Amino acid sequence: MNENVLGIIAGILTSISMIPQLIKVIKDKNVDDISLVMLLVLISGLSLWVWYGFIKDELPIILSNAFAVLVNISLLVCYMIYKKS
Amino acid sequence: MNENVLGIIAGILTSISMIPQLIKVIKDKNVDDISLVMLLVLISGLSLWVWYGFIKDELPIILSNAFAVLVNISLLVCYMIYKKS
Repeated sequence: MNENVLGIIAGILTSISMIPQLIKVIKDKNVDDISLVMLLVLISGLSLWVWYGFIKDELPIILSNAFAVLVNISLLVCYMIYKKS
Repeated sequence: MNENVLGIIAGILTSISMIPQLIKVIKDKNVDDISLVMLLVLISGLSLWVWYGFIKDELPIILSNAFAVLVNISLLVCYMIYKKS
């Protein structure tokens, strides 16, 4: 299999798996199960993967990790909105 | 920064962020928040990333995704143990 096609399929699968948690948090307005520290560690790690993707010039790595950063920043925003109340 | 060092740091951060969920599930013996379908999608995606890493011969991608596969297979085992009861 072409390596880029493989990477894009891999990226789509790992990206899809993140969506339900975001939907659940938005629907339930409940962030009790989310750890702020872990969310920040994860966003830092994913951002470094995007950087790594740019250095290696690998589009599947850039796209899937950039998407993951967006999902987790959305979770972070939800955390800050719902944790107050 | 050396790209391998960058990839290894990125892999360590994203790996660390997965551990608390596994600990929580083992401690609480509660898998109600885990979706079996999403877990299978995630394990498939991560396995394809390991394959991608082998094709590209990139150790940081192989190691971090292989670790993620292990963590999520452990979650799958927990799911099957605790879902019955």
